[in-house]
Amino acid sequence: MAEGNYSVTPWEVKGKVDYDRLIIQFGTQKITEELRQEIRSIVGEMHPMLRREIFFSHRDLDLVLKDWKAGKGFFLYTGRAPSLGMHIGHMIPFIFTAWLQQKFGVNVYIEITDDEKFMRNLDYTLDQTRQWALDNILDIIAAGFDPDKTFIFQDTEYIRNMYPLAIKIAKKLTFSEVKATFGLDVSSNIGIIFYPSLQIVPTMFEKRRCLIPAGIDQDPYWRLQRDIAESLGYYKAAQIHSKFLPPLTGPEGKMSSSIPESAIYLSDDPKTVERKIMKYAFSGGQPTIELQRKLGANLDIDVPYQWLYYFFEEDDERIRKIGEEYKSGKMLTGEIKQILVEKLNNFLEKHRERREKAKEMVKDFKYEGKLAVQMWEKIHE
Amino acid sequence: MAEGNYSVTPWEVKGKVDYDRLIIQFGTQKITEELRQEIRSIVGEMHPMLRREIFFSHRDLDLVLKDWKAGKGFFLYTGRAPSLGMHIGHMIPFIFTAWLQQKFGVNVYIEITDDEKFMRNLDYTLDQTRQWALDNILDIIAAGFDPDKTFIFQDTEYIRNMYPLAIKIAKKLTFSEVKATFGLDVSSNIGIIFYPSLQIVPTMFEKRRCLIPAGIDQDPYWRLQRDIAESLGYYKAAQIHSKFLPPLTGPEGKMSSSIPESAIYLSDDPKTVERKIMKYAFSGGQPTIELQRKLGANLDIDVPYQWLYYFFEEDDERIRKIGEEYKSGKMLTGEIKQILVEKLNNFLEKHRERREKAKEMVKDFKYEGKLAVQMWEKIHE
Repeated sequence: MAEGNYSVTPWEVKGKVDYDRLIIQFGTQKITEELRQEIRSIVGEMHPMLRREIFFSHRDLDLVLKDWKAGKGFFLYTGRAPSLGMHIGHMIPFIFTAWLQQKFGVNVYIEITDDEKFMRNLDYTLDQTRQWALDNILDIIAAGFDPDKTFIFQDTEYIRNMYPLAIKIAKKLTFSEVKATFGLDVSSNIGIIFYPSLQIVPTMFEKRRCLIPAGIDQDPYWRLQRDIAESLGYYKAAQIHSKFLPPLTGPEGKMSSSIPESAIYLSDDPKTVERKIMKYAFSGGQPTIELQRKLGANLDIDVPYQWLYYFFEEDDERIRKIGEEYKSGKMLTGEIKQILVEKLNNFLEKHRERREKAKEMVKDFKYEGKLAVQMWEKIHE
Repeated sequence: MAEGNYSVTPWEVKGKVDYDRLIIQFGTQKITEELRQEIRSIVGEMHPMLRREIFFSHRDLDLVLKDWKAGKGFFLYTGRAPSLGMHIGHMIPFIFTAWLQQKFGVNVYIEITDDEKFMRNLDYTLDQTRQWALDNILDIIAAGFDPDKTFIFQDTEYIRNMYPLAIKIAKKLTFSEVKATFGLDVSSNIGIIFYPSLQIVPTMFEKRRCLIPAGIDQDPYWRLQRDIAESLGYYKAAQIHSKFLPPLTGPEGKMSSSIPESAIYLSDDPKTVERKIMKYAFSGGQPTIELQRKLGANLDIDVPYQWLYYFFEEDDERIRKIGEEYKSGKMLTGEIKQILVEKLNNFLEKHRERREKAKEMVKDFKYEGKLAVQMWEKIHE
């Protein structure tokens, strides 16, 4: 959706996004303080990504909580189009989904769209996207999912179980309806045209409400689901939408795998992290020490501050103090960048330890865990 | 393809088809006497459907025979969109394919498109088309296939094994390319748009030449296959095309399941067969006995004669005699119809016996026969 000087679509995010206006444009709901407190009252705490409003918008989150309180339960669904390497922005929905699972004890389904990635890009082979799938799954597991309540599946493997339901969904969606939502036209290949039905299937894995944590740019996909779900005897998918972690290189758009200096990769070593942050991280500080001491930094456009705020500094008192000192000029750009470098390297070190351990758990998430076993026995109709 | 006063497309056959012109229009090859004799010299006999030229056109049949003689072999592929009941016209490709298998000893793959049938018709449920699939498979087995060299599969079951190759095919076909061939437009659902890739997959089940016996109306589907097969490392599909057995009700078009009096169903009992032939079979004979004795019948438009010629009277001497007597007025319309009734009921009785026996063989063709076991172990890439 293009509006003023920014644009948010499932295939592109450009400009400085006005999230309050986006809620109106997309017709979603703001996550109110009341709703946040309701979650806190149920689970006993509030994730920083909720508190800091990186998850800021929703559809039917209130109904999900209502169902949960009524004992009907719900389930979580998210996914990933595999890529050569994941960057830290990619971890946001997985970290938050794992937290929701820990707190609510519900099932999580994670779709790895090795088919979509292959069909969308002329340059990629299916061998490549499947290899990336296996690699990305390790990073996803490292977010902390429960191996007995989480099913991670690749489309090219799980298709047999999804296909009957997929064609029931497909029968309800015309080319006209999907082309605008998915950015397709008559020159699109016939596989990618069919693909939306496979993205919708997991929203119907259980006869309960499905909650999807994802970037708000993905919202249009789920509108199609909401148009047809009830006619097939399932619930409209609920969603909880996140903002975009700004790219290193500036406060606009979102991190892009095709611009390596715009992102920190989960595989970046400490030296690379330091070099990237020092060299590329877009600063709201002043160009000289003297000016910074005198005028202070503009936090609204400062990427290191925003990364700390939205992701890496969970301590409310500490982030408040960093903001205050940096804004007033007491803290210099080099200092806040150094704080971020440490936080990032700390996060990445722990992530890589968890990723290493994940290697032995892949078979549980995909095939042998309690939920996985159930899912392989089930044909979705 | 519409031309003059007839039209032949994969979804409609109208008017009196000029098969010689169709060969030119479609750009296929006529099956020459030389090619027929080559088949006879290899297998020792010639099927009446070849001799009487109901199979009359081909693409690369000469190359198939060349491959076979060079020891490279080939394989056969045909299929069916399941329907509530099959009529005798539906048996033509299966009877001929079974004969080719018996003579050449090659593998046969039969795709049952329960997905396609469901997605093409708003009124049908997936349960229905799968039920029809199971029913039609019995009729197909009754044509006489080898259970260890024939694999019959339903798309909704075998999709897992086909999907990786299907998306490689899909990636090479745009909506623009398939829409004309398959009669689609922007209001078509996204499942039926993807479907052509699943129809192409079986042409690549083996790294040999694939020969497809089918009605000539299906030819456009295979042109898409021939455009992309070599780029994926497979052979262009060869085909052998049949004419249409005229509908009971007249010499134009083809039998239609939606006009019950136009066809003899495999389940029609002897009384029904007699009633339908006597009442509906379009006659080239004269309106009165006197006129028939004097002027004789027009064989070109006489449906009972054509059914006998193309299908039910295999004896060359006998069909010659029937034609001569009926054309001269020595034989009356009622008499030729009675001959057809007997032949038909004889065929149907034997068919139903074979169909009964087929019930115990379904599991071999689908899952447990030698070829089926191999196919379930193979993922097509």
